[in-house]
Formats: sequence, structure tokens, C-alpha cells
Amino acid sequence: MGFFGGLFEFKGYQQPVLVSSVDGVGTKLKLALALGKHDTVGIDIVNHCVNDILTCGAEPLFFLDYIAAGRLNPEQVGEVAKGLASACREVGCALIGGETAEMPGLYTGEDYDLAGFIIGVVEKSRIIQGKKIAAGDTIIGLPSSGLHTNGYSLARKIFGETSSALNTVYPELGRTLGEALLEPHRSYYNQLKPLLPLIKGLAHITGGGLIGNVPRVLPDGLTASFDSRSWSVPPIFNLIQQRGNVDREEMYQVFNMGIGMVIICSKDNVDHFTQMLPEAKVIGEVIKQSGKARVIIE
Amino acid sequence: MGFFGGLFEFKGYQQPVLVSSVDGVGTKLKLALALGKHDTVGIDIVNHCVNDILTCGAEPLFFLDYIAAGRLNPEQVGEVAKGLASACREVGCALIGGETAEMPGLYTGEDYDLAGFIIGVVEKSRIIQGKKIAAGDTIIGLPSSGLHTNGYSLARKIFGETSSALNTVYPELGRTLGEALLEPHRSYYNQLKPLLPLIKGLAHITGGGLIGNVPRVLPDGLTASFDSRSWSVPPIFNLIQQRGNVDREEMYQVFNMGIGMVIICSKDNVDHFTQMLPEAKVIGEVIKQSGKARVIIE
Repeated sequence: MGFFGGLFEFKGYQQPVLVSSVDGVGTKLKLALALGKHDTVGIDIVNHCVNDILTCGAEPLFFLDYIAAGRLNPEQVGEVAKGLASACREVGCALIGGETAEMPGLYTGEDYDLAGFIIGVVEKSRIIQGKKIAAGDTIIGLPSSGLHTNGYSLARKIFGETSSALNTVYPELGRTLGEALLEPHRSYYNQLKPLLPLIKGLAHITGGGLIGNVPRVLPDGLTASFDSRSWSVPPIFNLIQQRGNVDREEMYQVFNMGIGMVIICSKDNVDHFTQMLPEAKVIGEVIKQSGKARVIIE
Repeated sequence: MGFFGGLFEFKGYQQPVLVSSVDGVGTKLKLALALGKHDTVGIDIVNHCVNDILTCGAEPLFFLDYIAAGRLNPEQVGEVAKGLASACREVGCALIGGETAEMPGLYTGEDYDLAGFIIGVVEKSRIIQGKKIAAGDTIIGLPSSGLHTNGYSLARKIFGETSSALNTVYPELGRTLGEALLEPHRSYYNQLKPLLPLIKGLAHITGGGLIGNVPRVLPDGLTASFDSRSWSVPPIFNLIQQRGNVDREEMYQVFNMGIGMVIICSKDNVDHFTQMLPEAKVIGEVIKQSGKARVIIE
């Protein structure tokens, strides 16, 4: 049970609106277990939550976690908590504890589950809702750091979880498969915070990829048209596609394919983004919808 | 991901302080699975959370859930959601959705885990912190509806989870063991809301029982002295104690023993509680600490 003195954080807000999100890390946890590395999933869950509420323009206020296991391993929990704390610190979010539950009979061996809950706040007049998005607007992409927290069931199916598979070094990755897959979900809050007033729409690319996540921010009658040659798909995704013989369409529906956050802004403001965010790339355009597709990836 | 218009709810608050809690249902879930009944655990998790933040005097604002399974069973999830919705409605708390996660390989068969997250608000000047509790104050108890959400690992160890064990009718319970064990965790919010200004301290009796939960609200140097003859321990606890040959001390450390919420108030206000809450019973007194014990159960 956690207390939070919300008073201080509401200073400067005329009409504070609370925004919240709950998420899990999914089966990326199974990889953390296979590799015996537990700090990164702590970072994953915080950053996933931070990015989710950022899409409304919200500043993260505080975070709570839920960790459940058959029998809690204090060392594992400590590592997870280290990751939670460092990611919360990075965005100035209070980590106000959470619940650790021992549930013998539900989880086997060292298995555990991890969920995160975040609360943020946004000024009512500054909520990003996508309503002002219009045909002709520009789509900017920010790179992901890897799979983030989605697509692990498919990746695990393709490569398995044996230590020989996970410890294989791939030249194109420059490290082991396990290290590449465990790469933490990055947060976009600090970078995007100063630019929020210029943003018309934000899509956090999670399960469903560009195809599943971008339509949610588009008003009716509009389509997001992406030029896939405008960014390079990171090697980890090509490796997954080749080894798993996964078709292109499915790849874009399951994985972020190198784009972790999509920004929609008016053409006039594009320079602000590319100047302030050296990693940002123009990756597409909003067009009038002509067929059924809300997302086109050319 | 959920939105919440916090503006409306903050009306009437001078200095709103947010209070949050995260909880699980624990292994009561395994009983729900064994009995194929999933609405009550939805009620359990909401009421557990509502009671937790009520101990600070907070009004529940909104609730999010996390449901994870190997493969989600839509019927099960629907039943759980029905329970969540009805319990949220009862206390005027917004159920703003949550996360359902499929994690093959982490959960087996029909197993699932359920966590809940609540945000409430309290006027800063009205936070209940227990600071004004003094020797001579009265301890009032409100009855629990059963085990609430604690002690299920021990109960399952004693009775097992076979359908013959759970479907046994015990005359003293007036129903089957399974029905008695699944009885939902009750919420105390609606009853206590009008009385909050008269309350010095509130302890929600969860894991740890009276012995574990009451000291948390007591200022240093004080002990809670309970007269166990002042309330009747419900038959389910006696049944557990007899069948499991559990000693008295352990029973009071694991189970609520019939008291779900403890109220501490000044002697002068006792009549307000007993008149407004017909179920309420004076069950003890706050005394100066003399030995090591912070809780005495006579």
C-alpha cells in the first residue's frame, strides 16, 4: 500500500487530468529467467508504462509494481527493483512500492510475473488526442532499442530458450542473441517532453506493431502511409525473419521493426523535431483514406 | 491504457492527496479455478484495494486490473470482469480497464493471475494516520465475511483442492466448504465514509491478522489489547483450526478471525459507531505498552 503526496506535483496545473496505465512484460520474463538477468525487465516495465501515458502528453507521477512467484527469490526481486528504481529515477517518477505475492501452486520453480501501474498527469487543455491530425501531416519515427516488450512469444518459438541458443554470438548483432533480446525497452519521455506542444499525435509501438498501434491515434478517414526505405530495420528483426521464415506482413504486425514511437506533426514543425532529436527520421505521411487500409507500409 | 478525467473528482478538495495501492488475490485464485467460479475473485481484488486506501481515509477514484494467463479464457475473464465491475459500482469507483496478458509457458492450463491497482484521493487535512491515537482509546471491530483474501495457502494445505473436499457440506457452515472459502472480501467504504472524521486509526486485517496489521497504525509506546470474548469467531475459522490442528497464536497471525476492519476512536465517540454500524463491536482498548507486545489478545 502506498501513499502519495499529490499536492506538490499538481502545482502549476490549472486543470489536472490523471492518466494511468497497467502493463506486463509478457514472455520477455521467460528470457530473463533463462539468462538469470532480472534488472532489465524492471526497466522494461517502467519504460513501457511511461511511454504509454506519454502518448496523451502525460508527465509520470508515480509507479507501483506487482511481483508474484511461487516462492519469492529475494535476489531476483532485488535485481528487478534495481531496474524499476533506475528507470523511475530517469524520468522523475516516484517508485512508491508495490505488492510482492507468494503463490505456491500457481508459479513453478523460479518463475515470476511482473506487472506495473503508472499514474501521470496532464493539463486538460494539453491532452494529446490526435483530433487535429489532418491529411498532409508528417509522420516522424524514433528508433526502438530492440523488441521492447513485444513479440517474445514468437521469438522464443523460433530460437528456443536453451542456453546454447541464447549464448550464440551473431556477427550482425555484435553480441549474443540473448543480450540483444533482453535489451531494455527505452523511454521517450525526456526527449519528447519539451516538444509535446508541437505534437498532434503519438503512438507507442507495442504489440501489433505500426499496423496495430498507429490507427488508434488517427481520426476517421485518414491513413498513415509509411515509406519503409526511410529507416533501417535493425539486424535483430532481420535475423528473426530469416530464421523463422516469417513473412513481411506478420513481422510488421508483431514487432516494432525499429520504430518505437511514432510522432505526427504538421509539416511546418518537422524541422523542430529533426533538429532537437538527431535520431528522429521522417518515415511517412498522413493521407486521405482511399481503400480499407489505415496503415500502408511501402 | 486508461484515461481518467481527474478534474471532476477533485472538485471540493482544497489540497487533494492521492493514495494508491496494488494487491493480488493470492492463492484464493486456485480455489476459484478448482470450483470454476470466477466472479468473486473480481469482487475480492477491488474490495481489498478499496479497504487498503480507506485506512488513510481515501475515497476510491479509479481501478485498473491485470489478468495474466497462458491462454486467456474469454469466459473466465468475462466472469472476473463482472465481479470487478459490480464491486467498483458499489463504491462509485471508475473501472478504467486494464491489461490482459497471454504468457504461454509461464502459466499452466487454465491458471491465471489477477492483480488490482487503485487510486484514491483524500483531503490533506483529513488523512488518517493514527498520530492522535492515545492510551484509553477504544478499539471497534467490523466483522469480516470470511477469510477475505488471506490464509488460503494454509487452508488449501489443510483441506486440499479436490472437488470432494470442496463440495463437502459442513453443518456449522450451512453450506459447502468451497462456498464458504470463496465468500467475497467485503468492502467497508460505504459504511465508514460518513464516520471518517471521527476515526483516529483504521487497520485493514489482511495477511498477518490482528497481530500483524494493528501495530502499523499505533504510535510508539502503545499496545492494542483485544478481548477475544467480545466477538464470536466465525465457524470457518474454527473448522480450519480443528481440521488442521493449528495453534491459536498461528490462527491469529494468519487469519482475520472474524474481524475485517479495526477502528480506533476516542471513548467519547464510541456510541456514534455502535449506533451507525449495528455490526460494530467494541473489541478492545489502546493501552500503554509495558512489555514487548504491541498486540495482546486475551
